[in-house]
Amino acid sequence: MHSFEELQEIFNNEIDRYSPAVEPENLQKPVVYTLGMGGKRIRPVLLLMAAETFGGKYQDAIPAAMAIEIFHNSTLIHDDIMDEAELRRNQTTVHKQWNLNSAILSGDLMIIKAYEQLNQLNSNKINQVLTVFNKIAAEVCEGQQFDLDFETDDEVSLSDYKKMIRLKTSVLLAGSLKIGAIVGGADTDNAKKLYCFGENLGLAFQLQDDYLDAFGNTKSFGKKIGGDIAANKKTFLLLKALELAKGAYHDELTSLLGNNSISESEKIESVLAIYEKLGIKSLTEDEMKKHFEKAIEYLEEIDIDEKYKDGLYELSKKLMGRQT
Amino acid sequence: MHSFEELQEIFNNEIDRYSPAVEPENLQKPVVYTLGMGGKRIRPVLLLMAAETFGGKYQDAIPAAMAIEIFHNSTLIHDDIMDEAELRRNQTTVHKQWNLNSAILSGDLMIIKAYEQLNQLNSNKINQVLTVFNKIAAEVCEGQQFDLDFETDDEVSLSDYKKMIRLKTSVLLAGSLKIGAIVGGADTDNAKKLYCFGENLGLAFQLQDDYLDAFGNTKSFGKKIGGDIAANKKTFLLLKALELAKGAYHDELTSLLGNNSISESEKIESVLAIYEKLGIKSLTEDEMKKHFEKAIEYLEEIDIDEKYKDGLYELSKKLMGRQT
Repeated sequence: MHSFEELQEIFNNEIDRYSPAVEPENLQKPVVYTLGMGGKRIRPVLLLMAAETFGGKYQDAIPAAMAIEIFHNSTLIHDDIMDEAELRRNQTTVHKQWNLNSAILSGDLMIIKAYEQLNQLNSNKINQVLTVFNKIAAEVCEGQQFDLDFETDDEVSLSDYKKMIRLKTSVLLAGSLKIGAIVGGADTDNAKKLYCFGENLGLAFQLQDDYLDAFGNTKSFGKKIGGDIAANKKTFLLLKALELAKGAYHDELTSLLGNNSISESEKIESVLAIYEKLGIKSLTEDEMKKHFEKAIEYLEEIDIDEKYKDGLYELSKKLMGRQT
Repeated sequence: MHSFEELQEIFNNEIDRYSPAVEPENLQKPVVYTLGMGGKRIRPVLLLMAAETFGGKYQDAIPAAMAIEIFHNSTLIHDDIMDEAELRRNQTTVHKQWNLNSAILSGDLMIIKAYEQLNQLNSNKINQVLTVFNKIAAEVCEGQQFDLDFETDDEVSLSDYKKMIRLKTSVLLAGSLKIGAIVGGADTDNAKKLYCFGENLGLAFQLQDDYLDAFGNTKSFGKKIGGDIAANKKTFLLLKALELAKGAYHDELTSLLGNNSISESEKIESVLAIYEKLGIKSLTEDEMKKHFEKAIEYLEEIDIDEKYKDGLYELSKKLMGRQT
């Protein structure tokens, strides 16, 4: 079995070797550009790890890992249009570097190219893998639409929010693991448990993202603290606070959200003070911990020798260790 | 075997029965809305016909026909964004009825939903069908990008143009037929010939579209005459004229293209006069005829009893008979 880092290197070499057609340039270049932006390749590498966990060869799972990464990148291109983002990983986004039309079309092409990869899998696995892939890919679209809808929806509940992050973030992680398990030869029950492991790990990871925006430190988080607060983003923290706040706190919080006359830093500071009073920090930690422990329980339940799970245990801890 | 009209009705019933998920509404409703806009369903019905031509059951080919139609409609949603179109089949386009984000996402979802259909095919056909589908779907994106690029490219040649319409229009028609043939049990050689039949029929059909814009009559064409000329659209007619025109004609034609001070009807009249002098009408007719005859030759070469080809012969003539 290979370590995460080894599989990451192997996978990065595959991405570097990947060459779609050359023409038309305004369609094909954005594909290479986007895949070349880098990133940790968590999903495809987890997929390869899952395949090895069940005794499969990572080589047999490479097309599926490529499919997941290419699909994931197609959603990044289209999400960047919707978010009007100008930068991704410090590089100009496709719709800014080229234009809206090239960004739409190259994203479309990448969805198709993901399926082209899946069609290179061993043919007795294709049916099963496609079933998982189609489901999670559709769910990612659903999650993104819910996320967009939430921006203008004043009635978002905590459970709506968790449903949205599950669809937008967790299922792709979970599905990557499940597809890896299928290719590696896992039985249905084990593949399902690995999916649930990934689903809960994904939720914990996304909650950690919300958490770090408010309680992280700029250096290890790599982003400015309070960005979500400044943007009125409906995170777990804000929704939990709105749920818990009564009377004066509730009025103060809602008036802060609608207040454009105070400075960004003032707003962040005031919202953080309310979070402090409501105990949002430890409530969020509890929620993260709950999902992380649930993930680990599923991993423990998988019916294979413990030694094959070492890589996944380690990686889970690493993914959840960003606040330290 | 069923007639085109019978299969059209069968297929329309399938489309009516098709129900994706309900939530989120801003994602799912555009899917139902777009598929419900109607249309002749030429591609999916040709696919079903092709399956029957080779002794297959149309029922077995329904998922593939659905896949083709759903994919085709996804491209319509995204093309309408790129063309900034407000109407399609007299109904508000998705990006106008909802918004850009819903239009991008619902188009994405429909690509995935197309593959969901393909995964319902008999599993011993999936690999082969996916190979064809992935290729033509990617080519449709390429064709659309070339079409966009041509708008601002002053060096478009006739062969560039034919390559573009082949990718944008013909391959989906050809691929539908080939997929139908595969599902119906055709051998590789016959499936390939049916593809070539469709490719040439698609080219003839698109050239006819260009032709009717200049030389059709409003009543049977259903659109205003001269729309392409008014928009400086680089059609076969214009590119052929630019290729043939020498000296004074060439100068007149290029100056007409850049002239915004004359009325639309004056421009159309003047360009048509040049087309007349250069014999563009009969040259385009020759080109249409060449591809139509090539299509028929491929159909003749297919190694099955002639009686099974009747439907395809008839339909070809019908598709090419719009000018009468």
